[in-house]
Amino acid sequence: MTTLDDLPIRDDLRGRSPYGAPQKAVPVALNVNENTHPIPEAVAHDIVARVAAAILQLNRYPDREFSELRAAFAGYLGHDLRAAQIWAANGSNEVLQHVLQAFGGPGRTALGFGPTYSMYGLLSSGTGTAWVEAPRDAEFELGPETAVAAIREHDPDLVLLCSPNNPTGTPLSHETIAAVVDAARGIVVVDEAYHEFADPGTPSALELLEGRPRLIVSRTMSKAFAFAGARVGYLAADPAVVDALRLVRLPYHLSALTQAAALAALDHSAEMLAMVDDIRGQRERISDELSRLGFHPYRSGANFVLFGGVDEPHRVFEALLARGILIRDIGLPGCLRVTAGTEAETTAFLEAIAEFAPRGDDASKIASGAASVPDATDRPANRMDA
Amino acid sequence: MTTLDDLPIRDDLRGRSPYGAPQKAVPVALNVNENTHPIPEAVAHDIVARVAAAILQLNRYPDREFSELRAAFAGYLGHDLRAAQIWAANGSNEVLQHVLQAFGGPGRTALGFGPTYSMYGLLSSGTGTAWVEAPRDAEFELGPETAVAAIREHDPDLVLLCSPNNPTGTPLSHETIAAVVDAARGIVVVDEAYHEFADPGTPSALELLEGRPRLIVSRTMSKAFAFAGARVGYLAADPAVVDALRLVRLPYHLSALTQAAALAALDHSAEMLAMVDDIRGQRERISDELSRLGFHPYRSGANFVLFGGVDEPHRVFEALLARGILIRDIGLPGCLRVTAGTEAETTAFLEAIAEFAPRGDDASKIASGAASVPDATDRPANRMDA
Repeated sequence: MTTLDDLPIRDDLRGRSPYGAPQKAVPVALNVNENTHPIPEAVAHDIVARVAAAILQLNRYPDREFSELRAAFAGYLGHDLRAAQIWAANGSNEVLQHVLQAFGGPGRTALGFGPTYSMYGLLSSGTGTAWVEAPRDAEFELGPETAVAAIREHDPDLVLLCSPNNPTGTPLSHETIAAVVDAARGIVVVDEAYHEFADPGTPSALELLEGRPRLIVSRTMSKAFAFAGARVGYLAADPAVVDALRLVRLPYHLSALTQAAALAALDHSAEMLAMVDDIRGQRERISDELSRLGFHPYRSGANFVLFGGVDEPHRVFEALLARGILIRDIGLPGCLRVTAGTEAETTAFLEAIAEFAPRGDDASKIASGAASVPDATDRPANRMDA
Repeated sequence: MTTLDDLPIRDDLRGRSPYGAPQKAVPVALNVNENTHPIPEAVAHDIVARVAAAILQLNRYPDREFSELRAAFAGYLGHDLRAAQIWAANGSNEVLQHVLQAFGGPGRTALGFGPTYSMYGLLSSGTGTAWVEAPRDAEFELGPETAVAAIREHDPDLVLLCSPNNPTGTPLSHETIAAVVDAARGIVVVDEAYHEFADPGTPSALELLEGRPRLIVSRTMSKAFAFAGARVGYLAADPAVVDALRLVRLPYHLSALTQAAALAALDHSAEMLAMVDDIRGQRERISDELSRLGFHPYRSGANFVLFGGVDEPHRVFEALLARGILIRDIGLPGCLRVTAGTEAETTAFLEAIAEFAPRGDDASKIASGAASVPDATDRPANRMDA
């Protein structure tokens, strides 16, 4: 039998494993930060209608410039953006791959601040770009001084900032982003995949685009739009950046089905985003309960919570999986990550994790979703002390 | 205003233009080898139903291994193939990009035989692979001696064979393919994007897979399946090759919509492929009529015909465009390429091109489709003499 070792694969791929979290059929899947709420039925109906119309012309290549979709993204994002400033691809991974293909490559370096989204390193190596991971401040925060010092040290061609950061959930300040753009000579990407879950009023890095042609803000429909299965990521930037990406994309990279489905969903953005408030509520509930149980949840602006204070993460991960609850062991010592699901899913997780609580005394009393927010007096004064 | 030149793009991208034929709204579009027949309505209905079911779970990531689809492709291709031997991506361009990412890259070389599919060179440069184009034999044929001599000369890491060849239409013999696999030390891809249009009984390179673990046969649903808008390419190879491609693909690269649409179409492969016979008939009609008009059509096993004997190709291209007929000026001296469309589209093309015929005497007498095949006595004994 032929094996991978018998084939002339690239040397840097030898011995590697494919990227990807386990895909398991479990009752409660809270491992890959999906939006666990299905698309509202009325919206699904419209998506089907629009996709059905596209199927009638499927024998023709799709609009290579996806002009209508770019205009729709510009409208959704606001901030006076124009269609010429928008790019999209099959998931934000492909969007970032296009950025790295255009601005990275052999002899160039991309810098990030770990722990961060693990695809950054893989996308860098896949495009021949060197990947450097600089450290964060305490509690996984990233202040301007730390960020700028790393840029001075590594002189990167690209900086990839994840805001809020995956897998830690940490929000990122405009002060840090602006300082990074000023200090860096290259492209700065702010990956806002989880931006819609930020606390209300949190400004987007889109506000910083004007006058900063090296700044790129990327987004995805996977999370807030409950569209992970459709694979639609996008970005906003100076039109010249979009011109650069056009040089590296495969022609017709966005299918007519993808364009139709995304357009229909954007037509219903208010309904699609209605779920976001619920999810943010469950995230707060998770953070509060985990604090009360004596875990250490980190500050999160996303639809997930990273929490420390776990004695044996992998044993806890396996114990929850045995109960049909899949969360994520991201390999950070003492930590696990959980996605904020529906109220019922969140309850299932909290009941299960309570058994492993550092404070065992009240582990069985998990508040239900509706009455989920404990009184302030029940909580530690400072969650970070927990 | 910021321009591309102000941005730190990769040096090898400077001054480049994006790839892609003009996308123009014209009555008769015969420029990009699409299947001009829409999907049959009953089949479209089933595709909609299957896609609608997928939309209900679109909040979840798609099956990263697209297992059901791989099994369906194996069933469609036959030749005792198993799902473990199948890979797929968003168009055969992405399939080939995965192959080049895994087996090409900086310091490696891919070899093709020009003129051939222009994306090969672009995909190579996009993955940092050096691209070498060796010449073909007379009439764009490629015999084993010529192919093997080029392999000896260039010692490539990959060989990309297009069968039938785009843009020339030239079929490729098993003798040449087997000789190339024997002579090359690296991966050999046979791109059979247009295989279904070959003359009945033409064997596929799939027959050669057994015992040749470095051989890859790629296909697309864009052409025979009238699925260009859906972006579905695939390949068959040794399971170890598939293991290699899994290392370079982006996770979840095939959307749930794409998987659902492709599965539904494969369920109806007999109906989808029914159009192929019509198209092959129109291709033969084009070749015959062009010969009769004094042009020089090259031997084609595809859904298009390359023809020489055109005095000023670009002027003819523009003149046809002015009449609403879009064909392709691929830059080969004295040549143009036309896709075989429906009977009516083909008639429109033939009537228009007749005005520019080297033999002007009977240019106005274009046979209609139904009575399209002239008697043998009407044709030159050898079309290559024309």
